Amino acid sequence: MVASDLAKGNRLRVVKFFAYGWSSQRSYPAIRDQVIAALSEATHTGWEGLLAGQRAYLDRFWERADVELEGDTELQQAVRFGLFHTLQAGARAEQRAIPAKGLTGPGYDGHTFWDTERFVLPVLTYTEPDAARDALRWRHVTLELARERARQLGLEGAAFPWRTIRGQECSGYWPAGTAAFHIGADIADAVQRYYDTTSDDTFDREVGLELLVETARLWRSLGHHDPQGRFRIDGVTGPDEYSAVADNNVYTNLMAQRNLRAAADAVARHPRRAAELDADFEEAAAWRDAARDMVVPWDDALGVHPQSEGFTNHEVWDFENTRPDQYPLLLHFAYFDLYRKQVAKQADLVLALHARGDAFTHEEKVRDFEYYERLTVRDSSLSACTQAVLAAETGHLELAYDYFAEAAFMDLRDLEHNTRDGVHIASLAGAWLAAVAGFGGMRDYDGKLTFSPRLPARLTRLRFRLVFRGRCLRVDVTKKNATYALLEGEPLRIAHHGRALDLTTTDALTEEIPSLPERPRPSQPHGREPTRRAPNGS
Amino acid sequence: MVASDLAKGNRLRVVKFFAYGWSSQRSYPAIRDQVIAALSEATHTGWEGLLAGQRAYLDRFWERADVELEGDTELQQAVRFGLFHTLQAGARAEQRAIPAKGLTGPGYDGHTFWDTERFVLPVLTYTEPDAARDALRWRHVTLELARERARQLGLEGAAFPWRTIRGQECSGYWPAGTAAFHIGADIADAVQRYYDTTSDDTFDREVGLELLVETARLWRSLGHHDPQGRFRIDGVTGPDEYSAVADNNVYTNLMAQRNLRAAADAVARHPRRAAELDADFEEAAAWRDAARDMVVPWDDALGVHPQSEGFTNHEVWDFENTRPDQYPLLLHFAYFDLYRKQVAKQADLVLALHARGDAFTHEEKVRDFEYYERLTVRDSSLSACTQAVLAAETGHLELAYDYFAEAAFMDLRDLEHNTRDGVHIASLAGAWLAAVAGFGGMRDYDGKLTFSPRLPARLTRLRFRLVFRGRCLRVDVTKKNATYALLEGEPLRIAHHGRALDLTTTDALTEEIPSLPERPRPSQPHGREPTRRAPNGS
Repeated sequence: MVASDLAKGNRLRVVKFFAYGWSSQRSYPAIRDQVIAALSEATHTGWEGLLAGQRAYLDRFWERADVELEGDTELQQAVRFGLFHTLQAGARAEQRAIPAKGLTGPGYDGHTFWDTERFVLPVLTYTEPDAARDALRWRHVTLELARERARQLGLEGAAFPWRTIRGQECSGYWPAGTAAFHIGADIADAVQRYYDTTSDDTFDREVGLELLVETARLWRSLGHHDPQGRFRIDGVTGPDEYSAVADNNVYTNLMAQRNLRAAADAVARHPRRAAELDADFEEAAAWRDAARDMVVPWDDALGVHPQSEGFTNHEVWDFENTRPDQYPLLLHFAYFDLYRKQVAKQADLVLALHARGDAFTHEEKVRDFEYYERLTVRDSSLSACTQAVLAAETGHLELAYDYFAEAAFMDLRDLEHNTRDGVHIASLAGAWLAAVAGFGGMRDYDGKLTFSPRLPARLTRLRFRLVFRGRCLRVDVTKKNATYALLEGEPLRIAHHGRALDLTTTDALTEEIPSLPERPRPSQPHGREPTRRAPNGS
Repeated sequence: MVASDLAKGNRLRVVKFFAYGWSSQRSYPAIRDQVIAALSEATHTGWEGLLAGQRAYLDRFWERADVELEGDTELQQAVRFGLFHTLQAGARAEQRAIPAKGLTGPGYDGHTFWDTERFVLPVLTYTEPDAARDALRWRHVTLELARERARQLGLEGAAFPWRTIRGQECSGYWPAGTAAFHIGADIADAVQRYYDTTSDDTFDREVGLELLVETARLWRSLGHHDPQGRFRIDGVTGPDEYSAVADNNVYTNLMAQRNLRAAADAVARHPRRAAELDADFEEAAAWRDAARDMVVPWDDALGVHPQSEGFTNHEVWDFENTRPDQYPLLLHFAYFDLYRKQVAKQADLVLALHARGDAFTHEEKVRDFEYYERLTVRDSSLSACTQAVLAAETGHLELAYDYFAEAAFMDLRDLEHNTRDGVHIASLAGAWLAAVAGFGGMRDYDGKLTFSPRLPARLTRLRFRLVFRGRCLRVDVTKKNATYALLEGEPLRIAHHGRALDLTTTDALTEEIPSLPERPRPSQPHGREPTRRAPNGS
C-alpha cells in the first residue's frame, strides 16, 4: 500500500518490482529463495539499472542478429517482430521445451512440436546459440521417456514425441503423431547444426553424441533392407499432414540418412563416451551402410521426386471445384480423401529440397519445386517460409517475396485468424529463414557456410549478421553485389555463388551477383496463390 | 395358471405356445395382430402339427443342402452344425441384416459386416436362395443411407457401411471401417451370384440393378485414371485388418472390376429401369473402360502378387521372435507396426484367388498361395475356410483338411475362446465353402457351375447338393470318381476338371478324378500352423 499527499502539479511515481521463478527440479523453498534474491537484486539495481541491463542484452543481440531490409518498411518491422519473438520464446526457456506459441498464448495447450528443431533452432543457432543449446539439452533430459516409447513400439533407440510438454507423446491420433518419426532426425539435425556452428565439444560429448546415437538406432530398427539391398523406411508420416503412413517419404529418408551419418561421425569423435552408450564402430558402420543404401523414390515418367513412394500416381485433388470457404481442407474433407490424393498441406518434399539440398541437383530442385507448387495449399503456417527459400533458389524471386511476406505477417496481420491463441513462433522464425536462406541464399550443409544471394525487385538492400564458431559475419546484399565482412574472429572460408572466399577481419570482400533469367511464375492451387506484395506499396 | 388334481401315476402334460413378431415398418397394432393370429393358428394346429411342419421344412432343406462326409464323424457333425446355424441366422432374417453372430449372442453388439455377403450368402444362395434374396433386399432398403454416406465422403453412388445395424456406418476407426470400400463389391458379388443362380428377374430389376449401379458409381468416382491410362484405386483397406489405407489392393480392385462389369451388364438387361436411375449406356461404357484398365499390382522379382501396391517390399514380420501368447497380434502390437510389415491377419490376396480365381493362372495361384501362407496368422475367423479352398485347389489336400476342420470346429471346440458371445456364422458357413468349393472344387465364375473335386486322405466320400436355377444337383465324390446327378429340373451344363458335362435327370454321370502329385506342405508363421487333423482319429 502506498499513501501519499500530493500537492497540485506534483507527480507520484511508483516503481514496483516483480520476480518470477520456476523449476521442474528444484524444491519450492529453493525457488522462493531465488525469487527473493532476484527481488532484492532488482531493488538494489533499481529501475534504470534493470532497464540498462535489458537494453545492453538486446543491443548485443541485435548487433549480432539483426536483419535489415531497404525498400519495404512494413516488412522490415515484421522481420524484427518475428526475430524478437523467436528470441523471447527461446532465450529464457531454461532447458525447457520451446512451445509452438512460445509463452504468448494458450494455442496448442502449451505443447512443443518438431517445428522447434526444424524452424526455430536454425535461427537461434546463428543468433543466440546458447538458447539453441538449452532447447536441445531439454530434449536430452527427456531421453529416457523417448527410449521407453521406442521400446513400447518395438523399436531400438529413442522415439521422440511428435507433440509433448514434458517428453511423453501427447498426440492421440497415431497416423499423424507416432508415425511422424522424422522428429528424431529433426532433433539430430539441430544437434549437428549447433555443433557445426559452435564447436561446443562439451555439448557434443555430453548431449549431442547420445541424442545422435539414440536417434540413429531408431532409424536402423525402423527401416530394413529389401532383397536388392536398399534400405527402406515404410509406413511413416512425413511433414505434410495431408498424407500419412506412406513408404519412403523423401524428407524422412534423407533426414534419417543425415542422422545416421552424423551419429557415426560422433562415435568416431568420442569412442570412449560412445562405448559407455554401447555404441561401437561396428554399429556405426551399420548406420553408414543404411545411410548409403537409403531409398529415395523417383518418378521417372514425370521427372520429379514423389513426396513418398507412389504419391505421384495418386489423383490430383480437385482444386477447381474446391471453394475458398472449404479451406483449411481438414475442416471440410475426410482424412480418407486427403490422404489418398495429391494435395499437400505444407512443404514436405520442398522442405527436403531445403533441409537436404545437398542431395538434389539444381535441375531436380527446379522441377520438384514447380511440381509441388501446384499441390501445396498452405493450410499450415509451416510452409510459406520454406516455399520462399526454394522459390528464391529456383529463380522465382517475386514469388519468394510473397511467401516471405506471408511468413513474416502471419501474426501482425493475423493471417490465420488465430493470433489471439498466441503467435506462430515457427512462422516468425521462418521469416528470418526466408530472408537469410532465401534472399541471402545461406546454406550450411556439412558445416560449411555458403551464400547465393539475390534480391527481389522491391528490396534495394538486405543486410544480415550471423554468429558462427566464435565469429560474427555480416552479409550486405544489393541488387548487384554482396559484401561479406567478418566483424569478429578467426579467418573463415565461405562461398559466394559456388566460389570459395577467404574472409578475415581486415577486409570486407565484395562480389558480383550473377544474373539469372527469371522463370515463368509457377501456379498454385486455385484460390491459394499467395497475396502479391507489389513492388511498391503494400 | 393351471390347477389339476393328479392321481398317483398320472401324468400332466402342459403345452404352451409362444409367438414372436417384429417389424421395423409395420405399426405396433399390426404386429400385435400378427402375433395373436400366429398364436391362434398354433393352438389350432397343435404341437404335433407344428412339429411336423418344422420337420417338413428342415427335411426339405437337408434334402437340397446336406453335405455328407464319410471317414470323419466328428467333422460330419460339425459341418451340419455349421449349416444349421447358417440357415437359422438367414432363413427368418425377414429382410433385416444377418449379424456376424446371428441371434446367438451379444458379440459385435449385433452388428453385421461384409462377411455376410462374402461368406454367408454364397452358402445360402445354393441352399436356401430366398434367404440370400431377403438379405440383399435389406441392403437395398438401406441404399439411401449408403448414398448419403457417399455424398459425405465426396463420392458418387453408394458407400455401404463396413459395420452396421440399420445402415449407418458404425465403425469408429476409419482406416479399418470407411476405407474398407470392398464391402460394396462384396454386396455386388452376392447380387450377381444370386441372380446367376436363380434367374430371379423381378429381383434383378427391382433390387439388383440399383445395387449394382450405385456400387459401380462408387468405384468409378473412388478410382481414377493415371497418365498411362491405368485405373487405380488408391488409399483403401482390403479384407486383411493388419494392413490399411494402401494403393491398389488386389482383392478390392478385382472385385471392383467384376462389380463394374456386372453393373454394365445389368443396365443392358434393363435399359428402361436403368434410365429411371439416370444410368445409360455411356455411363455403362465408362464402367467397362475402368474395369478393363484396372491396375492389378504384380511383383516381378518375387513372381507373386503383392496384396496391395508395395506390400512385398515391406519387412516381413518377425515371427520367430513373436511368442504364442502375443497372438492375436492386435492386442500386443501397435497398428503402426502391423500396417508397415508383411503380416496378414486373414486371407486377402488369397481371398482374391478364390473370389476372382478367373483372373489368375493356376501357376500364379500356386505361387501366391504359398507366399501368403508364410505371412497369414489367422487372428481372424474369416481366414481358415478360404485357405482351405486355395490349399485344395493348389494341391495341398491335407493342409486344406486341417483348415476345413478349423473353420468347422470354430465354435464346437471354442477355438477363439469367445463362443460365449455367439457363434461365428461366417466361419461356420465357411465350413460349407471348404467342403464344396474346397474338396468339391465348385466354382461359379460368370454364372457357370464347374467342379474339380479331390478328396484328402481321411475322407472316403464327400456328397453335397446344390440348388441352381430351379434344379437340384447332387455331387458324389470318392477318391477315384465323381458322380453328378441332376435330381430335379431342366438339363444343365457343368464342367468336371475342365471338361464340359451335360446333365439330365435321366442319367447320373460318373467321371474319373485326375491324379495330382501332392506338393510339399507350405509353411505358416512360427506357432500359427493349423492343428493337424490326423488321417485317422482326431
